[in-house]
Amino acid sequence: MPIARVRDVAALAGVSPGTVSNALNHPAKVTPETLSRIQSAIDELGFVRNDAARQLRAGTNRSVGLVVLDVANPFFTDVAHGVEDELGPADRPLILGNSAQSAARELTYLTLFEEQRISGLLITPAGNVVERLRRLRDRGTAVVLVDRLSRTRDFASVSVDDRLGGRLAAEHLLDVGRRRIAFIGGPLGITQVKTRLKAAQDAVARFGSGELVVMASATMDATAGRLAAEEFLALPRRRRPDAVFAANDLVALGVLQALTMAGVRVPDDVAIIGYDDIDFAASAAIPLSSVRQPAHEMGAAAARILLEVIADPDQANPRHTTFKPELVARASTRSS
Amino acid sequence: MPIARVRDVAALAGVSPGTVSNALNHPAKVTPETLSRIQSAIDELGFVRNDAARQLRAGTNRSVGLVVLDVANPFFTDVAHGVEDELGPADRPLILGNSAQSAARELTYLTLFEEQRISGLLITPAGNVVERLRRLRDRGTAVVLVDRLSRTRDFASVSVDDRLGGRLAAEHLLDVGRRRIAFIGGPLGITQVKTRLKAAQDAVARFGSGELVVMASATMDATAGRLAAEEFLALPRRRRPDAVFAANDLVALGVLQALTMAGVRVPDDVAIIGYDDIDFAASAAIPLSSVRQPAHEMGAAAARILLEVIADPDQANPRHTTFKPELVARASTRSS
Repeated sequence: MPIARVRDVAALAGVSPGTVSNALNHPAKVTPETLSRIQSAIDELGFVRNDAARQLRAGTNRSVGLVVLDVANPFFTDVAHGVEDELGPADRPLILGNSAQSAARELTYLTLFEEQRISGLLITPAGNVVERLRRLRDRGTAVVLVDRLSRTRDFASVSVDDRLGGRLAAEHLLDVGRRRIAFIGGPLGITQVKTRLKAAQDAVARFGSGELVVMASATMDATAGRLAAEEFLALPRRRRPDAVFAANDLVALGVLQALTMAGVRVPDDVAIIGYDDIDFAASAAIPLSSVRQPAHEMGAAAARILLEVIADPDQANPRHTTFKPELVARASTRSS
Repeated sequence: MPIARVRDVAALAGVSPGTVSNALNHPAKVTPETLSRIQSAIDELGFVRNDAARQLRAGTNRSVGLVVLDVANPFFTDVAHGVEDELGPADRPLILGNSAQSAARELTYLTLFEEQRISGLLITPAGNVVERLRRLRDRGTAVVLVDRLSRTRDFASVSVDDRLGGRLAAEHLLDVGRRRIAFIGGPLGITQVKTRLKAAQDAVARFGSGELVVMASATMDATAGRLAAEEFLALPRRRRPDAVFAANDLVALGVLQALTMAGVRVPDDVAIIGYDDIDFAASAAIPLSSVRQPAHEMGAAAARILLEVIADPDQANPRHTTFKPELVARASTRSS
């Protein structure tokens, strides 16, 4: 099938190509009767506006990109649902990119989205992309950071107080009598991981007794948790930590699964707390304690801010919304 | 920052705009020395090719779209991981769209991707989109159906034998002595749901005793499962089914959670089997029986076929790969 062009639509509707162009771009300039004739011709020919041509004129298209650290982590799909709930009514399709915590993959998406001239970008950065984000913004794409506070504060952001979250997790483990805590997560360069770890270290130091050992993982999924658990099990019994603080719930669920399969009693031998409070935390074989982040609300808030920035790109003061995390204690840290 | 244009790059490199254009599109025509001068100018100015202009010439861009029924379902993120494993080395970024089982949202993505002239589309259709897909293909986008066999067989596809899967689930419940099976899933118009249900009905009919009741759900997530469980619990005890076949694991996990919270014993009072065998099935409070689909392999196979179609768009015989599902029996259907 040949691709229908504006001139084909014009010929079928019996108007000039300029009138078709007006109908597409400035419909108020065209009479309702003509509009309806042009619409019929468009339907009949299966004409689709060439977005490439339109973007050359308009500069951007209506879509919004969301780049997440792990599309398989329910935390990020909950964020995405929150975003979709706000963008849907605004008629802006959301396209998702999965950086998989890789700075190289993240750059691939930023380049693609820059080339496609999307109108808005929501991103939880994996690498150091501040300069690239500035350039995107200079080219007319609205940018909002998700789950991350911009250090330079020049991008709007929605984040959670990860220092408080890390502290809540560590203090809870100390409260239930644990003194040797393994922190499992990584890579340690990821800001969320670094901040949660630092806050936990500070909490242990303030407490005055006890210690925190770091078991860095390469990724943040259940497989990483199972691998860390094997390392854990390779330690002589008397040197094993009596608690695990996993940097997210997927890692915690992997640890829980591998430890219980090896006969370690949770929480009697080892208490485990995760982070995020994804749906699967509560329904795990041993319900998992966690630090709840309001993922859906974060996504919705980020999308609302993005729509504001799209409407008014030259806002003087970028908005920063910070949510508070909450401790959710379940069976994995409390003997019943 | 003003946007750098080809002529700015040309001026800085001391060459003509035509030479810059050659360097970008036909680098073999340009001497290595000149290429290197142009590359330096590009780096210095932060020049990015305007994809819109490039697409006008080339017809498509390198990205591949994947439209899934539910981005929060680990089955689809496993499929996406399989796709990424193949597309990454081929230097083709994957962008994800979530139709959320809505035909309207699906059309929005198809329109966006058509406008953006992506080079390939992988889709698990929600609505009747055969005509739209034909048009996309006629415009140069390679199309492969995922988790769905094209009835007309004119699109390449990767699917799982859902008839066999539905039969395995129902026969297993009959095998363990259940005679009143509730099928929970929906909307019933979704092909996978319809096929699994039909196969289960046929298995019950062949068995000769027992019955299957349909409890249609509006969606296929844990919330839908919890809602169905409430309906289940509202039935008089003697009329309650003694088994549940949920059309996917998310629904099954929601049912499991709500029934156990209400004091129903699983599997003693009610046996539950899901579908997909997502990671969370094995680690549920009561490990969930399921019908395993090889999600990651399906995604990888679909991506390999897509790359073949992109390389050779006029293949005479579209390829169809069908995987076999497997029964995975766990505690939710077997008393230990």
